[in-house]
Amino acid sequence: MQPAAYLAQHREEHLKALFALLAIPSVSAIPQHAPDVRRAATHLADFMRQIGLEHVALHETEGHPVVYGDYLHAPGRPTVLVYGHYDVQPVDPLALWETPPFEPTVRDGKVFARGATDDKGQMMMHLFVAQGMIAQGSLKVNLRFLIEGEEEVGSTHLAAFVAAHKELLGADYVVISDSPMLRPGVPALCVGLRGLSALEFTLRTAEHDLHSGNFGGAVPNAAHELAALIATLHRADGSIAVEGFYDGVRDLSKNERAAFDALGFSDEELRQQSGAFALFGEGGRTTLERVWSRPTLEVNGMWSGFVGEGRKTVVPAEARAKITCRLVPEQDPDAVAKAVAAHLRRYAPAWAQLEVTFGGGDPAFLAPPGHPALEAARKALEEAYGKALDEIRMGGSIPVVTTFREELGLPTLLMGFGLPDENLHAPNEHFSLENFAKGMLALWRFYESA
Amino acid sequence: MQPAAYLAQHREEHLKALFALLAIPSVSAIPQHAPDVRRAATHLADFMRQIGLEHVALHETEGHPVVYGDYLHAPGRPTVLVYGHYDVQPVDPLALWETPPFEPTVRDGKVFARGATDDKGQMMMHLFVAQGMIAQGSLKVNLRFLIEGEEEVGSTHLAAFVAAHKELLGADYVVISDSPMLRPGVPALCVGLRGLSALEFTLRTAEHDLHSGNFGGAVPNAAHELAALIATLHRADGSIAVEGFYDGVRDLSKNERAAFDALGFSDEELRQQSGAFALFGEGGRTTLERVWSRPTLEVNGMWSGFVGEGRKTVVPAEARAKITCRLVPEQDPDAVAKAVAAHLRRYAPAWAQLEVTFGGGDPAFLAPPGHPALEAARKALEEAYGKALDEIRMGGSIPVVTTFREELGLPTLLMGFGLPDENLHAPNEHFSLENFAKGMLALWRFYESA
Repeated sequence: MQPAAYLAQHREEHLKALFALLAIPSVSAIPQHAPDVRRAATHLADFMRQIGLEHVALHETEGHPVVYGDYLHAPGRPTVLVYGHYDVQPVDPLALWETPPFEPTVRDGKVFARGATDDKGQMMMHLFVAQGMIAQGSLKVNLRFLIEGEEEVGSTHLAAFVAAHKELLGADYVVISDSPMLRPGVPALCVGLRGLSALEFTLRTAEHDLHSGNFGGAVPNAAHELAALIATLHRADGSIAVEGFYDGVRDLSKNERAAFDALGFSDEELRQQSGAFALFGEGGRTTLERVWSRPTLEVNGMWSGFVGEGRKTVVPAEARAKITCRLVPEQDPDAVAKAVAAHLRRYAPAWAQLEVTFGGGDPAFLAPPGHPALEAARKALEEAYGKALDEIRMGGSIPVVTTFREELGLPTLLMGFGLPDENLHAPNEHFSLENFAKGMLALWRFYESA
Repeated sequence: MQPAAYLAQHREEHLKALFALLAIPSVSAIPQHAPDVRRAATHLADFMRQIGLEHVALHETEGHPVVYGDYLHAPGRPTVLVYGHYDVQPVDPLALWETPPFEPTVRDGKVFARGATDDKGQMMMHLFVAQGMIAQGSLKVNLRFLIEGEEEVGSTHLAAFVAAHKELLGADYVVISDSPMLRPGVPALCVGLRGLSALEFTLRTAEHDLHSGNFGGAVPNAAHELAALIATLHRADGSIAVEGFYDGVRDLSKNERAAFDALGFSDEELRQQSGAFALFGEGGRTTLERVWSRPTLEVNGMWSGFVGEGRKTVVPAEARAKITCRLVPEQDPDAVAKAVAAHLRRYAPAWAQLEVTFGGGDPAFLAPPGHPALEAARKALEEAYGKALDEIRMGGSIPVVTTFREELGLPTLLMGFGLPDENLHAPNEHFSLENFAKGMLALWRFYESA
């Protein structure tokens, strides 16, 4: 049977199986839901066994369990490690949901439920396709499924699990469907993620806050010094003034720029999505370029002195700021953090004590150009959707991508079927049934040809 | 009997009466101490009656009561309104007290107890002198005593009380002993206080904090904008860059500068007192000039974004800062606040919303030069101490000084007998018995001649 016919024929069965998983409130962040999280893991493992996967097991971690299963019957062919997660975000504010978050409902061609798009819906697509291909004997790759239960709480125990199970997870590359397309109707392949580098710092100008009447005018003010120091980090054109920050950072190639331009991306749409009153960024760069391919330095938080109600006439003795940088592939997280720290030391006034704490980071990710899996995915997506795909990037990081590279030496293919307005992490999360169907078709073609 | 002889003869009696008041834990800030505060008021009123004052009464307010008493038997002579307070600061941390805060103890010529210098000790000196002068018939002025119980909690209900009792409080000027001398052994007259002007502001760049991966690089960061805006408020030389801020502010006269210089003030001593790692202030000015006679603009607190433990990769949508300015006599608090607000509006970026909230203020105070009471006080102090006095100022405000000027149209004479290291508001508060004795002698001479 043709894949499209098979998928159409099993549509109700797939929805029923998806709904059964969506009905389990596997909220990993809330301790009271721990039994539900485990129930979801058990349910998922049962389903894996039911569709014919092997070596299916719940692997205990110090947190929620990892569910593993495989189907390794294509000798000499690539092995794909499919990563996903069965845990979901909390549902507050509950009152804003039009239908209860754990009672999956179809409206306007969309499944509404917590986890519909992030990530139960997208993850189950792979299992339904595996089920069909195993049943029809058409699976041309070896599949390993690694489905975790702590993605929404920072994948706390995943790196340790991966490090301890390198053999079990041996593969040629990783596939993840847990990211958005750029726009409806057009398939997307995410070929780049920015990295991250974090640090925080404290400026101290005195042993304790001082009375501004007794001392104001004669002693330094830590809030002023912090403000002045932060103001040195960027130039007026929005670029970053830290020496060495852009070392090695290359401009977009002609092809990359053409690919960005070809997306017909709307600045105003991004502005509205963001809730920002206006866009602002590094001069001479387009918005997509700024978010996808340029490094940033952001103060995530800062504070000093008295921040309560009313008036307190103190000269603050201490001021603090937290910084994260978004990185591009040519940047090393440690080198960037060190460059920022050197800048802070250079511009901090002589009369202040500066303390810098490094917070670690992740390098950026760029899909290896010309990788056969990338080409297979492109072909599969474009055939399934009948359209040229959007080659996109994401401005954020996906830490597990770093985990798979560092622990297993594997590249990752990011084939996401979500849409940007599907309310992940918000009330009324939903998932498009069109992408559910077309996405499974694409995955089927991919697993036939990869 | 000569005043010195009288005071020596009654020394034990005075200490006993002072200790009785010091033993009452009249901590106005702590609700559980409200009965003690009232007990102190009643005790004080009883003592006033005992020494011969008239119209003695506890006047109820919405907070702790005001104690009033007068002695108006010098027709045609000036009436002095003596202000003081019978409430005290909390005593925490109690463990750091060498002797219990409400068990007055004499060590090394000092009375140790909460309230010893601030203000029970200094306030009672006036009552002991009145007692002696009434007994001897030598009082040459009319005296009204206004002793409040809420000074340590901001004199919350005093202005309303004064406004409602203008006739009862009618006088020629106010005398307050609730401030420090500059150094031991040298009497001081405080002829200037800085004023205050307060405002706070908020910058908003988006509806809510944004994900720095999804939007970082393309949207403004409220923390960066706040830092840049605060950095525009001062010039590198420490002066204030707000247009109009210094309008009308005059430099010290030759005489004033000579008086400041004559004090032999030690910068290093002030630095150590403050706990600042270094001194810093407006270029080309001495430290005393900076603190006593130059206006300031201080950020008292600021905050933006995520300030908890760990990492949160947000682009802050909002940032806030609180500002107070210390003012000199030529400045109007409202005009200064408006000038600062105009500066903020001018330098805030177009892509941010700015909201400014005014917090009110007090003008600065400068004792009217040549006022007869000032000259009488100078003479009395120098005779009692046998030394030329320090004509000093304070960098802070004393809000009741504004109350008396605004409500009663009265100038205030600030004759303080505390020392800068007497731990007011801290453990082991104490008061020098030398200043207790010499101060009473000075007050006696003052009330004979004023």
